[in-house]
Amino acid sequence: MRNICITVSYDGAGYNGFQVQPGLNTVQHQLEQAIRWLTGEEVKIHASGRTDAGVHARGQVFHFHTGSKIPVTRWGMALNGRLPHDIRIWDVREVPLEFHSRRWAKRKTYRYAIRCGKIFDPMTRHMEFYHPPSLDLDAMREALSYVEGEHDFTSFCSVRTKAVSHVRTIYEARLDCAWTDEHLRSSVIHIYLTGNGFLYNMVRIIVGTLLQIGEGKRKASDMKRILEAQDRGAAGPTAMAHGLTLWEVFYEEAPPTT
Amino acid sequence: MRNICITVSYDGAGYNGFQVQPGLNTVQHQLEQAIRWLTGEEVKIHASGRTDAGVHARGQVFHFHTGSKIPVTRWGMALNGRLPHDIRIWDVREVPLEFHSRRWAKRKTYRYAIRCGKIFDPMTRHMEFYHPPSLDLDAMREALSYVEGEHDFTSFCSVRTKAVSHVRTIYEARLDCAWTDEHLRSSVIHIYLTGNGFLYNMVRIIVGTLLQIGEGKRKASDMKRILEAQDRGAAGPTAMAHGLTLWEVFYEEAPPTT
Repeated sequence: MRNICITVSYDGAGYNGFQVQPGLNTVQHQLEQAIRWLTGEEVKIHASGRTDAGVHARGQVFHFHTGSKIPVTRWGMALNGRLPHDIRIWDVREVPLEFHSRRWAKRKTYRYAIRCGKIFDPMTRHMEFYHPPSLDLDAMREALSYVEGEHDFTSFCSVRTKAVSHVRTIYEARLDCAWTDEHLRSSVIHIYLTGNGFLYNMVRIIVGTLLQIGEGKRKASDMKRILEAQDRGAAGPTAMAHGLTLWEVFYEEAPPTT
Repeated sequence: MRNICITVSYDGAGYNGFQVQPGLNTVQHQLEQAIRWLTGEEVKIHASGRTDAGVHARGQVFHFHTGSKIPVTRWGMALNGRLPHDIRIWDVREVPLEFHSRRWAKRKTYRYAIRCGKIFDPMTRHMEFYHPPSLDLDAMREALSYVEGEHDFTSFCSVRTKAVSHVRTIYEARLDCAWTDEHLRSSVIHIYLTGNGFLYNMVRIIVGTLLQIGEGKRKASDMKRILEAQDRGAAGPTAMAHGLTLWEVFYEEAPPTT
């Protein structure tokens, strides 16, 4: 038996999220189908975490056990040849049997993309949340500074969570104004959050609250107050899924090779 | 009667090109339908040029005559509200009645995007031609230098053209290695061609030939020889449509307002 660890990018627009759901087209379903085609095995894959419907991934990581003897150098091209073009595998390695893509993950980075301005870009409409009025970026940056550190994120967590502890550490919460398009008279804002773990909808609720701060509907310092409230009702709405990308998953030694 | 000039971006992936064709979904069809909904008129629009199936536009320009009294400031939002999200209007102006978006165009810029590397990016797969092996960019740049200037472009023109003269002037032919993605271990090459006009498939045939030069199948200086041959058979294949974007159309006074 071998443990195979794969890094994959996908455009989530066409999928009902990552996790297998009966009768729905999901990324996991596509990956398991491709692996079954290659190995003949009914494999169940385990990802570093789920992504919701419409959420994208630049560097999602998953692992699975297999009896297949196919060398790791062959897997990528073989699976990419079988997978739809909105899912691309870009790294395959054999890892120790005890490696687990979720439990061994040390840090994760998510990116949320917002387009402000007169119109949105039709070429990137599926990966940028469109917010026509401009936003107060300084206020949003100040608000993000309160998110950094170890906190109880109950306020920024879907009530549907099953997590026992709501304490997570955010190592970095950064806002970049990535670029401005003079033609479309619009600009793109990227929010990067890196933490040791994320609760259900946590990034999207933080961004939904940040948007209200950027609009001037709330003060930047409200972010601190909302965290302390430990009440989902204190925070803003859940931002739309399509602006979110699981950017990168970090391991102790990115992930170990046997 | 008024003459309205509109600048529009579109993702060409979902369309059978710009021009109306019976029974097919085209960009022109969508635009004319939206204008009919707004004005109640059966309007025929005239673009700066057609784009083929799968080709995108960042700044396509078209005009049409209308008896509508709706102020120009209202058109953009009204039409965008009706159009599918892969077509976005970003400028509307009233121009002199004699203005013609094709005949008055002084220069046009096209961009062709190529992704080289181990895998393509699923997020931008519909707008980048994927060419796994790396290319000799210096040879491609040298080849592009031969394209600049006034030439007979018969070799780089579909035999289906109806153009009488095949002489065009290329003001600039530039290759940028736009960026390198360390994660996907791939890079994106952008080729920009600016000229006073382009023959049918001209950019795509130039790029198809450039790719052969970048692969080392032809020498950079062959570009000069191919131009002189004035024979479509001397050039390389027509590059795939989806890498091409009509980038910008320039007018004497970008375009005049009444």
